[in-house]
Amino acid sequence: MKTLQVTAVIVMCGAVANAAVAGEPSAPAGQKEVPADLIRFHGHECPGITIGYRMALEAMKAFPADAKLVAIAENRTCGVDALQWVTGCTAGKANLVFRDYGKQAYTVYSAETKKGVRIVFDGQRVPAEIRKDKAEFIKWLLTSDASAFLTVKPVEVNEPAVEKTRESVPCSVCKEAVNLTYLREIDGAKMCIPCAEKRPAVAK
Amino acid sequence: MKTLQVTAVIVMCGAVANAAVAGEPSAPAGQKEVPADLIRFHGHECPGITIGYRMALEAMKAFPADAKLVAIAENRTCGVDALQWVTGCTAGKANLVFRDYGKQAYTVYSAETKKGVRIVFDGQRVPAEIRKDKAEFIKWLLTSDASAFLTVKPVEVNEPAVEKTRESVPCSVCKEAVNLTYLREIDGAKMCIPCAEKRPAVAK
Repeated sequence: MKTLQVTAVIVMCGAVANAAVAGEPSAPAGQKEVPADLIRFHGHECPGITIGYRMALEAMKAFPADAKLVAIAENRTCGVDALQWVTGCTAGKANLVFRDYGKQAYTVYSAETKKGVRIVFDGQRVPAEIRKDKAEFIKWLLTSDASAFLTVKPVEVNEPAVEKTRESVPCSVCKEAVNLTYLREIDGAKMCIPCAEKRPAVAK
Repeated sequence: MKTLQVTAVIVMCGAVANAAVAGEPSAPAGQKEVPADLIRFHGHECPGITIGYRMALEAMKAFPADAKLVAIAENRTCGVDALQWVTGCTAGKANLVFRDYGKQAYTVYSAETKKGVRIVFDGQRVPAEIRKDKAEFIKWLLTSDASAFLTVKPVEVNEPAVEKTRESVPCSVCKEAVNLTYLREIDGAKMCIPCAEKRPAVAK
């Protein structure tokens, strides 16, 4: 059992945490294709979404159906969309934490017990001839036993949760509303981050 | 016309950029409810997903159906899931850029022309009595003209794209595969970021 440290998990919508409920959206085990809804969400079918789908399904086996989950993604590749779709840990609910290390690893854990699993995809174990053909690769990923290419390890996550307020006030410079958590004060003037840093990024 | 600066837009899946195609998933204009598929993906219905849905629909009006899009989210709230679902700019395809300023603003632009729109939700213009009731608030958001609560401005985005390699090698410490773009070298040993920084976060 290893311990992960997560900087912040922020849930902003409403008073009740909106961590995912395991099993929503529905992702029946043993399915031999990536669900059409997931492919539509992602935009295309590919080995990456298939890998992420198998990883996320494998992670879900560690939790009861009503578990509130948090996910940590160690990459920003196609598989993350499967992770979102299967676990319900989405960028919008902020129960999806990005730690982009360029590694094919996802951790999913319970927001309540802090216990979960880290799943690693080991591409080295995929036969070289399989990888040459995209359709064959997808078929192999869907029909092989998960243990043929995934490693699952139990983890416990140290999670100092940070709650943000929902209240916003206008930035004194650009006048746009900014969440109080993000407000900066410079020489007594309260402003948003882009105005405080005079970033060219700001479209005022 | 304002100019935004985006640090990096990274597309990793395949040789062809996987920027979204406008209009996928389907999101018919004038729809008076948030699509059930989107609510299922997000996990619940709320004003936040409704605001994001209207913002994303409004953004899509600026593009032809086959436009390849990139989105910039200035928050990490519920609306981001609608932004992903409607525009096809998803965390997994990395054509969704996070700039979490705590502001209710999304920018969507063409990966080809770099032109697009920045949409801002102005909560101050929502009648106070409407905000008290969640169901009423959602109904108001769906039935009001977008101009009643959204501001749309054309922008041009300065986007120095960075392409990452797809090749991975094993980290010399934890032996897990790491994308070459992320590899660090310390005293001649090549390793992944967590191993290089000896982060407690690493579950080896």
